[in-house]
This record gives sequence, structure tokens and C-alpha cells, in this order.
Amino acid sequence: MRKMAVIGLGHVGATVAYTLVSQGIADELVLIDTNEKKVVAEKLDFEDAMPRLPYHVEIKTQDYAELKDVDVIITAFGDIDASVRTGNRFAEFEINTKNAVEVGKKIKESGFSGVIIDISNPCDAVTSILQETTGLPRNQVLGTGTFLDTARMQHVVGDALGQDGRNVEGFVLGEHGNSQFVAWSTVRVNNKPITEFFTEEELEELGKKPAEGGFKVANGKGYTSYAIATCGVKLAQAVLSNAHFFGPVSTYVEEVGTYVGYPAIVGAKGVEKVVSLVLTDEEKAKLEQSANYIKEHLDSLK
Amino acid sequence: MRKMAVIGLGHVGATVAYTLVSQGIADELVLIDTNEKKVVAEKLDFEDAMPRLPYHVEIKTQDYAELKDVDVIITAFGDIDASVRTGNRFAEFEINTKNAVEVGKKIKESGFSGVIIDISNPCDAVTSILQETTGLPRNQVLGTGTFLDTARMQHVVGDALGQDGRNVEGFVLGEHGNSQFVAWSTVRVNNKPITEFFTEEELEELGKKPAEGGFKVANGKGYTSYAIATCGVKLAQAVLSNAHFFGPVSTYVEEVGTYVGYPAIVGAKGVEKVVSLVLTDEEKAKLEQSANYIKEHLDSLK
Amino acid sequence: MRKMAVIGLGHVGATVAYTLVSQGIADELVLIDTNEKKVVAEKLDFEDAMPRLPYHVEIKTQDYAELKDVDVIITAFGDIDASVRTGNRFAEFEINTKNAVEVGKKIKESGFSGVIIDISNPCDAVTSILQETTGLPRNQVLGTGTFLDTARMQHVVGDALGQDGRNVEGFVLGEHGNSQFVAWSTVRVNNKPITEFFTEEELEELGKKPAEGGFKVANGKGYTSYAIATCGVKLAQAVLSNAHFFGPVSTYVEEVGTYVGYPAIVGAKGVEKVVSLVLTDEEKAKLEQSANYIKEHLDSLK
Amino acid sequence: MRKMAVIGLGHVGATVAYTLVSQGIADELVLIDTNEKKVVAEKLDFEDAMPRLPYHVEIKTQDYAELKDVDVIITAFGDIDASVRTGNRFAEFEINTKNAVEVGKKIKESGFSGVIIDISNPCDAVTSILQETTGLPRNQVLGTGTFLDTARMQHVVGDALGQDGRNVEGFVLGEHGNSQFVAWSTVRVNNKPITEFFTEEELEELGKKPAEGGFKVANGKGYTSYAIATCGVKLAQAVLSNAHFFGPVSTYVEEVGTYVGYPAIVGAKGVEKVVSLVLTDEEKAKLEQSANYIKEHLDSLK
Repeated sequence: MRKMAVIGLGHVGATVAYTLVSQGIADELVLIDTNEKKVVAEKLDFEDAMPRLPYHVEIKTQDYAELKDVDVIITAFGDIDASVRTGNRFAEFEINTKNAVEVGKKIKESGFSGVIIDISNPCDAVTSILQETTGLPRNQVLGTGTFLDTARMQHVVGDALGQDGRNVEGFVLGEHGNSQFVAWSTVRVNNKPITEFFTEEELEELGKKPAEGGFKVANGKGYTSYAIATCGVKLAQAVLSNAHFFGPVSTYVEEVGTYVGYPAIVGAKGVEKVVSLVLTDEEKAKLEQSANYIKEHLDSLK
Repeated sequence: MRKMAVIGLGHVGATVAYTLVSQGIADELVLIDTNEKKVVAEKLDFEDAMPRLPYHVEIKTQDYAELKDVDVIITAFGDIDASVRTGNRFAEFEINTKNAVEVGKKIKESGFSGVIIDISNPCDAVTSILQETTGLPRNQVLGTGTFLDTARMQHVVGDALGQDGRNVEGFVLGEHGNSQFVAWSTVRVNNKPITEFFTEEELEELGKKPAEGGFKVANGKGYTSYAIATCGVKLAQAVLSNAHFFGPVSTYVEEVGTYVGYPAIVGAKGVEKVVSLVLTDEEKAKLEQSANYIKEHLDSLK
Repeated sequence: MRKMAVIGLGHVGATVAYTLVSQGIADELVLIDTNEKKVVAEKLDFEDAMPRLPYHVEIKTQDYAELKDVDVIITAFGDIDASVRTGNRFAEFEINTKNAVEVGKKIKESGFSGVIIDISNPCDAVTSILQETTGLPRNQVLGTGTFLDTARMQHVVGDALGQDGRNVEGFVLGEHGNSQFVAWSTVRVNNKPITEFFTEEELEELGKKPAEGGFKVANGKGYTSYAIATCGVKLAQAVLSNAHFFGPVSTYVEEVGTYVGYPAIVGAKGVEKVVSLVLTDEEKAKLEQSANYIKEHLDSLK
Repeated sequence: MRKMAVIGLGHVGATVAYTLVSQGIADELVLIDTNEKKVVAEKLDFEDAMPRLPYHVEIKTQDYAELKDVDVIITAFGDIDASVRTGNRFAEFEINTKNAVEVGKKIKESGFSGVIIDISNPCDAVTSILQETTGLPRNQVLGTGTFLDTARMQHVVGDALGQDGRNVEGFVLGEHGNSQFVAWSTVRVNNKPITEFFTEEELEELGKKPAEGGFKVANGKGYTSYAIATCGVKLAQAVLSNAHFFGPVSTYVEEVGTYVGYPAIVGAKGVEKVVSLVLTDEEKAKLEQSANYIKEHLDSLK
């Protein structure tokens, strides 16, 4: 049976949990947050919903020992207000470094041997800290990273062409943050390079939008929740069903020596394989720069 | 195709919309709120999610004219803080009377001829006002009413017996508010009367829990959202598919002369039929009392 | 993760498998049939479908050793032509006794310790043989039994009243075969006894329909598949999610000393509890008679 | 609300209908077949399933007049045995030309103005005849065409690389039949051209598999059903939700002057746009050859 956990029940974590419950994705669900009242309230709300749903999910709360035989943990702790206020997800770095170390230790103590999917920001850095603190193999700890930014790119490119975002392939790479970039050489629409649809100037404009998108949403509603939760759940499903899913996630990329948004194949054991892209020199430089930004922050902890 | 609308995009309305989008229930979705920034942000968040979802939903915003050919409107406006702070959903009566009149008029002007499912509180009163203001036939305007409270009753009774809430049938009747009551004579578990499982004292204790349940959740997380949204969506689906669904909703009950939580059959035209229950004298009295409480408030408007 | 198996890939077994694949219910699926060509073809057909589905399912074939860590096995072997031709599901008794013994032994050898849900006919007898042959505790081996016939009863009663079958509660009890009967004392619609809706004569007529229903379908299309597969999948989901689901299944009922269709609570370990009904004397007699019919056949094997 | 129809209830049509019912995709479903007994039996089987499903679907049978306000018709009539026996889908040409003309006329008489998705074989020719006979605009009549063959290509390429078929993009073009071909210049895996993964010889071998795949399945089980039904349903959903879905379907391609498998964008009005591909000369020649094969057959009717 599918046993899953969500750690951190803010807007994002709660939406992840709701998706897992309302669509019958989890059979057993462990909810953990420092705000005990919130966790208990969410559990009750889900259980009040259940007589109106076609699925049953066993919900447990606040018990790290339950993680021992969990298949997938989704971490979504943090202080989004800081990120939204400053327009920089590294505004959560200090608090979430502390959170990640604490949570990571407790996960380790539980004997957990599954896959962690981190949503907490700054995503790449927090994923890295969780991997180190839990001591799990790198492949078993990944982050949503630019999986969301790539969806935003697909959305804005699709919109600009009067098409659905799913008709757009390609990647946003780098930090799930301001140093991210669209690797336009990888982007294709309807089986054609993106350059057949837009001029370089237009691409430059379009290229800013994925990174801006998150703050546009956050400024309007105070946070982002539905798209990021959807991304987290999709990756969790890829792990549960060993889907060999190909997409950009925050994973450890040897070439740049850090966790960073880059395409990989995701299956039961997390990242099966990081898939090397053929990038332009400019894109390579941007990736390195973005990776360095993440590494500098991580180094500052030592 | 299924064209739906959500008016009021607070926690509940947004969760309703997310459910409709993430499960592909709506083909076209109109979102309306007085907070334009919030609506635009939710739309973007949904559209950012779509490249990761298997469904496409056309999302439109802030345009009452779009309601003309909508199948189902879910209304979820209001000021939940007032209800939570006071522990009485009639704390929202003044503000939501105003909202309901405004929204109702605009719905009427749009030429809408579908079904309205009201979630806004105080649910029975607001549903009544929406019906009057829109001029739609009574059957086409209903509220979630005690559909949620009944789920809560199923949940707490199920829990007390170590069973799933779906094994419990029967109804919470009356106001979706403090004067509601469990009609224990209608409640059965595993094909047996509830009195085979609990003493009268135990039932008295259990009977308080559904009404308390909402505030327990709201006190823990500041509002309730998942169970109520699930109830609203389930009724909307019953309308869309003409499901002849039997359940307790806020509907106009002739015997007591007001909208109130009572079992009905719900189909394409809203309430097909109010189903008379055989109640005990005590239950009849409680229902009347609860109905009077609603009527008094509605009368105070005249 | 959810690992499931289907043994017997005729119309029913294949439909069960399609449901598990197309709705992403299973993560891993083991398919077994004596007709190897058929199994391989179904696997290919499912895999050809997958690029158009939102789910990934790992499909394995013909390997009993894979059952070791399977959560739920659904058995659907048999020779439906014999049943349809004769109008009696015991026409498959001889062949399926043989099948059940063979299959049961191989399940046992695999080290399987999950739950078996039997669909093969005559359902109650085959479920009994599977339990004996596998040596699994009685609760871990159940059959769809009158879960389907009860759905048929709900359907015909609902139809007669212009309502949805889900508005009808109550049970068909006894053999999943010609000696089954509707226990009208348990049947209720809209929270009222069925006798408020129909005369005794009408009930007598209606009562024949569930048993006839299967043959009506089978005569028209050569077999039945969709309703029975839906029943099997629903029970499997109840097991996977430990749903404490209350419904009529083929389970061992102490009072009558055999597997027979009777209400029970189904969870992770199969039948958690057989729930005693209060039946009329006539119903008790019918149940005993139906149970005896099953027992006589089972005794004839010794 | 979503009103859909399936004409032709063999293995494929019935599986399409089951998918629409079991996943709550249709609100109203019209089933039509020359074998009245079969249709009635399928309807009963679906209705027997409904009390165990979370969805309600109104099912109507054999009434062409009901098509008037249907959104999408899926046609799946034919004699698959002829195709399987001969290994050539044009073996059904004679019978299905007749069927298509009859069905097309009746659709026209009903006043239907929605979208037809044809599955019947030979798919491209039958789609063409349905378009002519119904007099509907070309965009409103499309066929599954090489949408299925492309899924098979994705499956076999994915398998050869130990990846999921969804990681493979590109197209099988031409006839949904023996003259189809993989346009390898369009095929990419993990954002790279297929030629980085396979030699030309290997591609030649792989290229035969999609066309063979159907017969491999059909030889093993007597027909194909799950993958083709899944393809038909996915296109129907694209129409219902105006998804602007990009994929290969059987559509009228001006350059080659016939219905043939080619990428298009599918939305509420059927084919929004045929998307021109940049093909190699060899691929262009193959496409023309395949188109000619279809045209010759269609010309033979005149």
C-alpha cells in the first residue's frame, strides 16, 4: 500500500495533502507540522470530507516514527512571507536551513529509506541540506526545483501562441529562484525549435516570465499553492509507480557540483539518471552561474 | 460541455475551483471575486498547474456576462473570520445579505438559468436571499446546508465505532449553524438503528459534535475548507450528471416555510423533490425551532 | 506501493486489469492466465495505451513467484460459457474446482500473505476452495458474492422508483447464484422501509430481477463484465486503503457454516468482521437453504 | 453537460463506453449498434455497475434523434475479424464503407453539429466517408489514425531504452494501416534526436514494430481494444475541454489531398489546425505513397 508523508502544512503542504486524499493517491498519510493545532485541524477537515469522497485514507499526525515505512515524504515547511516580501526565495534560507537540519535528523532517526521530494525554499539548497542531514543516497532526495518554473514557461509560451502549455517541451534550468533561466535551445513547440515562432527579442521578454510568474501569483494571493502542489504530487506519483518519468527537478548534477534544476529520469528510487543536455555556451555559463549562487549559500553554512 | 462558475474565491471557493480544475470536472470555469488581484492570481496558479495535469480547463475571470450559459454556480463569498471569531455563522449575516443581494442581481442580469449551489454563510438564509434575488425557481437554488454537518456526524459516529463514516446513514437537520441537530431516529449503522450502538446519554454527547466540528477545524486552521469544498463539488456533480442524488441540502421545505437542511433528491434541475422524513415529535420540534431561527433573521430584513 | 495481481484474463479479468491500469490504481500488476498468448497480448495492449494515460503501471506476466509480495489478488478464471449456456453458475463447478485447487496451490507456494478477492464462479464455492487450498486465514479470502447482485437490486429498485440505485440500501444474501434472495427486511430507500414503496406482490416480482439480471446481460453480450469488474475493483480498493468498507461479500459465516453472500466490513486484512443482520424467519430459512446448496456441492468434493 | 455517443459497440466501442462511464467523463451517453441485444446488455451492465461507482451517467440506446445535441460521437463499428484474419485493415473497407454511409446519413438527419471521432477501420478512409456523408466541415470529423500507432512507437522506443514511452516524442504518419511509417526525423527522446540513441539499422527494425504491434495484440486476443479505446477517449476529452491538444490524428491534409495520420491541434471544434512538419524527402515520399494508397481506395468507390 502507498504510505506517504507531508512535513510542513502551510498552504502548499495542505494542498498537497488534500490532493493525495481527494484523489485517493495515498492509502496512509502522515502529517507533521510544528503547529500542532493546524495539523489536527487539517486532519479533521480531511476526515469530515471523506464521507463525501470515493476514497479512504488513513491519516496519522505528528509521529516521526511513522516515517519508517513511508514510501515518499514531501517536505513543504518554511516561511513563504519572507520570500514574497523580498522577492527572493533565499530570504527563507536561514529559517529553512534550521528547519531542514531538524527535520532531516528526525527523518534519519525514523529509519526512513524511501524518497524525499522537497518543495521548501530555497529549494535547491534545502534539498541539498536534507540529503546531507538524512544521509540518504543523493538519488533518493530531490526537489521540485525548476519543474514548476518549466510549467510556467510552458504556460506562457503556450499562451503567446494560442496553444496549450503541454504542446511546449523544453526546460527552465538552474536555481528555483531568480538566477534560473529558460534554456531556449531545448524548447520546442509542435516538433519545431522555438526560434521558428519568436525573435530573439521576444524570447528575451518571454524568458523573464517564468521567474516572475511565481511572484505574480504570490503578490495576488499572498502565496503560491496549486501549481507547486501539483508538481510535488506528480513527482510523488512518478516515484510510487516507478514511472521512469523524464522532467526537470532539483537533483545533484556532477558537472556543476550541486543540487540544481536539471532534467532527470525519476522512478521508484528517486532520480534514476541525470540526463545530460546539449546546451549552448551561453546556457552553460548561466547554469554554472546559477549553480554557483546556490553553492555560495551552501558554503556559507560551513 | 460543462461550464461552471465560482463566485467568491476565499479559502473555500479557491479549493472548490482547484478541485474542479485538478480533477477535470469543469470544461470551462468562470471565477469571480471582489478582490480582482486574488482572482487573477488564482487563475495564473491554475494555469501554471495545467502542464502537469491531465486535464484542460478554460478559465475566465470577473465577467458576470459569462454566467448566461453556465450549468452550475457555486457561491462561496463571505467573511469567515466573523463566523469563527463569534462561533456563530450568523455573524456573517449582515455582510452576506448585502453580498447575496448584489451577486443575485448580477446573476439575474446575466440571464443565468442553471442551478446555484450556495456555500456562503449563514447558508440557509443566504440561499434564500439568492433565490429571491435571482428570481430563479426554488428548486434551482440550493445550499450545502447540513450536507457537511451530516458528513461530520458520519465521521464522528464512524470513529466512535471504529468504522468508516460511509457505513453511517442518516441526517443532521435544520440550520447549518448552532440550532442544527442530529435526527437520531434517521441514523443507522450497518443496517441497524443507532440505538443498538449507543445509549441515549452517549447519543446526546455525540450529537453535539457535528456542530462543534466546524469550529474545531476553524479554530485550528482559521477557517474550514476541504470538507465543505468537497460537499459543494459533490452536489455540483450531481447536478451536472442528473444523478438523482439523495442527501441533505439546504432547500425550501414547505412544512416549515423556509430554506433549511433537509433531505432531497438532487438532479439536473437542482432539487427534484424534497423527501419527507418520519421524525419523532422531539425532532419535529427541533426542526421547527431551527427553521424559526432562520426565518426570524430573514424576516428582520423586511 | 500497490502491487496487485489478476489471475484469469477472460472478459472479467481483463476488464479488472484495464480498470487498475487506466485509473492508476495499481503501481505494479501481475497478470496470469493459462492462455499465455492472451496474457502477452493484454500486456502489450495496456502498454500501448500508457503513453495516452496519466499513469504508469509496471506489468508482469505469468510469474507466480511475483505473488509473494502482492497486496491483493483478484481471481477471475473460469468458463463463463458453461454458466451462460445452462443458466446456472454451478455449471462451472467442476472446471473451476480444478482451477481453484491448482491456482490455490501455486498461490500458497509463492508465499503470498495478502488478500484474495475471488470473482470466479460458482463464487462462494470457489472462494471456499481457494481459502482451503491456500491455507490463508478465512478473513483474507473473500469473494464478490452478492456484492454484484446487491448492486443489481439497487439498480432495479432505483429504476422502479425513478431514483438512482445509490439511494437504495440493503442486501441480496446467499449464493451468488440462483438460490440467492433479496432480504427485503434490510432494504430501505430514502431512509424508509421498502414496504412503504411497494406491495408484497411487487416485491416478489422485483426480487427475481437481481438473479435474472446477470443472465439478461450475459444473453445479450455473451458474458457479463463491467459491473462485476467494478465490484471486484471496489473491494480491492477497500483492502488497499484499509477502508473499513461495509458491504455484502462472499465470506465465511459461522451460523451457516460456509462461504456465502453476507454483509461484512472489509479492510486491509480482508474481512474485518461479519456483521450479523436481524432477519425475518423466512429470510433466515432462505439463507440456510442457499448455504446448504453451496455446502452440498462442496461436500460432494470430499 | 457533456453528452456523448458511441456508435458500434464491439470490443472497442464497449471499452470506450466503459471508460466514459467508469471515470464519469460523460454526463449523458447514447449507445447505438446494429445488434440491439448487445446494446441493451451493455447498458444494463453499466447500470449494474453504477451503484459501485462514484459517477452517474444517463444512458440512452439506439436513438439517432438523440445525436442532435451530442458534443462528440465516437464511431467504432466494423468487422475486426476481417482485419485480423487478413492482416490488412482494408479488409473491412467494403463492409465499413457501407456502414459509414448508413451511419453518416443518420447522423446528418439527426441535426448533429458536434465533432465525430472515428475509430472504425480503415480509419482514414472511413473518416473521409463519414465527413462526406454527414456534410460536416472537415475539421469536425477526425479519426484516431496514427495516434495509436504513435503511442505504439513511443512504447517500443521507450522499451528499447528502458524508459517510459512518454519520454519519446514524434510521430507515426500516414495510413493507420500497413503503409504507415515512423517519421524518425520528428522523433526525439530526452530532448535529443533519436539518431543519438540508435543506428539506422536499428531504427529500421524499430520502425516496423508500431504497425506490427496491432496485429501482435490482435493475434493474441482476437482484437485490440484498450489502447485504441484510450486514444479515442483522450481525443474526445480534448474536444470536450477545448484542450488545444497537439497530436497525430487522421485529418484532411491539403498537401496530400486526403485524410491521413498527421499532427494537428484538436479543440472544441475538432481539428483547429493541421501543423506542417519539416520532413525529409524520403518521409515526404512515404507520406505521399501512403496517402495515395488511401486515395486509391476512396476513388474506387466513385
